[in-house]
Amino acid sequence: MPEFLHLISPSAALEIILTALPQSWAADTEVISTSASHGRVLAERVTAPHPLPPFPRSTVDGYAVQAKDTFGVSGALPAYLRLTGEILMGKSPTLEVHSGEAAQVHTGGAIPAGADAVVMLEDTQLIDSSEIEVHRASGVGQNILLEGEDVQQGDIVLEPGTLLRPQEIGGLMALGMTSVSVAVSPRVGILSSGDEVVPPEMEPGPAQVRDINSHTLAAIIARLGGRPILRGIVPDQHDALFEVVKQSHKEDDLIVITAGSSVSARDITGDVLQSLGDPGVLVHGISIKPGKPTILAIADDIPLIGLPGNPVSALVVGTLILAPLIRRFLGVQRVLPAPQIAAKLSVNVVSQAGREDYLPVRLQESKEGTLAEPVFGRSNLIFTLVRADGLIHIPPDATGLSAGTKVLVTLF
Amino acid sequence: MPEFLHLISPSAALEIILTALPQSWAADTEVISTSASHGRVLAERVTAPHPLPPFPRSTVDGYAVQAKDTFGVSGALPAYLRLTGEILMGKSPTLEVHSGEAAQVHTGGAIPAGADAVVMLEDTQLIDSSEIEVHRASGVGQNILLEGEDVQQGDIVLEPGTLLRPQEIGGLMALGMTSVSVAVSPRVGILSSGDEVVPPEMEPGPAQVRDINSHTLAAIIARLGGRPILRGIVPDQHDALFEVVKQSHKEDDLIVITAGSSVSARDITGDVLQSLGDPGVLVHGISIKPGKPTILAIADDIPLIGLPGNPVSALVVGTLILAPLIRRFLGVQRVLPAPQIAAKLSVNVVSQAGREDYLPVRLQESKEGTLAEPVFGRSNLIFTLVRADGLIHIPPDATGLSAGTKVLVTLF
Repeated sequence: MPEFLHLISPSAALEIILTALPQSWAADTEVISTSASHGRVLAERVTAPHPLPPFPRSTVDGYAVQAKDTFGVSGALPAYLRLTGEILMGKSPTLEVHSGEAAQVHTGGAIPAGADAVVMLEDTQLIDSSEIEVHRASGVGQNILLEGEDVQQGDIVLEPGTLLRPQEIGGLMALGMTSVSVAVSPRVGILSSGDEVVPPEMEPGPAQVRDINSHTLAAIIARLGGRPILRGIVPDQHDALFEVVKQSHKEDDLIVITAGSSVSARDITGDVLQSLGDPGVLVHGISIKPGKPTILAIADDIPLIGLPGNPVSALVVGTLILAPLIRRFLGVQRVLPAPQIAAKLSVNVVSQAGREDYLPVRLQESKEGTLAEPVFGRSNLIFTLVRADGLIHIPPDATGLSAGTKVLVTLF
Repeated sequence: MPEFLHLISPSAALEIILTALPQSWAADTEVISTSASHGRVLAERVTAPHPLPPFPRSTVDGYAVQAKDTFGVSGALPAYLRLTGEILMGKSPTLEVHSGEAAQVHTGGAIPAGADAVVMLEDTQLIDSSEIEVHRASGVGQNILLEGEDVQQGDIVLEPGTLLRPQEIGGLMALGMTSVSVAVSPRVGILSSGDEVVPPEMEPGPAQVRDINSHTLAAIIARLGGRPILRGIVPDQHDALFEVVKQSHKEDDLIVITAGSSVSARDITGDVLQSLGDPGVLVHGISIKPGKPTILAIADDIPLIGLPGNPVSALVVGTLILAPLIRRFLGVQRVLPAPQIAAKLSVNVVSQAGREDYLPVRLQESKEGTLAEPVFGRSNLIFTLVRADGLIHIPPDATGLSAGTKVLVTLF
């Protein structure tokens, strides 16, 4: 337990690194096709060049009328209106509705001049081709979508930093904006260090293993909106690591190094991060499991993260530290809580006080509802994580959770 | 209320269409680079060509020993072992550990022949370059990751239908699988019908509006794993619509038509879907708001969805009907519940019994926790939806929800 007490919490660690970065930040921008902009972050303010809807529209199938002609009418006491024509979809109405008149209109059709209400088809009876009977009174504006009811001309409709979802894409298209300025995805340099590590395409020798972390991290980073730049595998030697980190520092916006797990490998990473630029290492160790030996540094405004070399750590620290850093580079303005799945813990789990634990679980449907079953297995085994659906968080003041406790699962 | 009572529920509607599709289905497959496979669905069974880890590894920094040499030792009664060398990372160990001997080993390093435990550095004292003192007993296997502890050679590690996440990519790379067979994304033809609709790049005439739905739907479909094929805007005429749908039917796996909202436009869509092939229209109307006028059809094994022409409907029906259909084409085997955000409803909302309501809400942080504030506004206004973060579901047996009710918000 004491080993965690002098370490800082993930949120304090994040605060330290975000505070040490330049506070005024403008992402590089690029103009792309709106239809390819899903998941990107808007980099411009969008004002409406014209109102939406651009003209008053009917929300029902019926007849455009003057509301006062229907006042007080009912089934027993209908109004009779002269049918003067039909408003064709997509055509500007050429007729005008005067008192005592009605014009047929379809859902989405333009309201002709003179009319101020639409009576629904169901509330009318066609007498002959030139007359209708109206059975229900309409108020002014009834069943009409006003010009500009959605947005007025000149309205600010989207602010920079907005995440573009299907509806934002629809909104931009509605305003005729078929291209849009978005934040360029930050380049995230990824380095794996370790004398025993070879690339996946190589056949490992007798005491070698393939690189998992670079590729797991690249997928995490891409999903978070970053652009992973694979910087390869570097031996556990100060000078070799320094050279590759220096190159990444020149070209990338953010650097992630997964080191070997040995003390000497971690020391080398720490030394390199310290010597690269000011202010150097800011956080050395976080009160979190897995992920404790995480190192956070800044060298001349470039954040660097030294990650312990196991995939669960990469996912946990990726969510807690890397995601907010990438959002900062993208200029994301609005961050929602993470959606979760409620479940019942299937067995007792223990935890250490003073430490935030993240436990991989698999979801199982049962008669008692959704169960979260801890996926036990060492956190350095990649297929342990393949069996898991998500993580549960055990807060620092808990020493464990009993079977049956309601937990919230964050999916990977 | 009665209008909804003869309609079927979204889940029953989905069941009808899934049952009417061929039950044995194999997605087309393509081989892609594993590093580009995030979010895709695996189309092959993966068995491990070799064990993982491929050799026994130390999980700590320390000394490889024979466990029996440490039995009964303590700080007061240490064992003395002859230090015979260091196991270098990535190099096959050339030395063998005999009784009375120890070899230095780093985290992740290979365990030399003869050793069956690793004592942690912290539990030892280096006497000189050729001798260590051991202060704690080790059991057999302690601090050793066994060969094949993660997966054994020949183990089935991934089944077809698995969604590929960062950890599956890491696992594939660990086994040297740098390319992988995945399901081809189904082609989803998208048609917008409406005499008043023009493409976004066109300046609309006086009674025209730009096409929103095609582009909102394309983004939804791409996010669900489908490949949107824009089939353009078709006038509200039976023959014109039939021709374009027929072409899409020849080339696409699934077809979505957003019709104008008028009764006649919906009738034309229904007629076209009915006449295209067998069995034709299976569902005409769902007890859901928004989305009630949804039409579901199958023509010669191709599912067709006629959607009402407003963006909220597209998102709701997209989630409830389109998502499971696309998963069926991809062969997804495991479906987890949708993650949600718990919030308190900020105001009273009313609903109709017998109908499933989906209400767009915006999340707000407050002193009482996260509030879900209904975004009122007509569901045919796109910017209503831009202001919303997600949807809350009001079940069919409820006539409304009071302010303060705990609700679960599904993000868009």
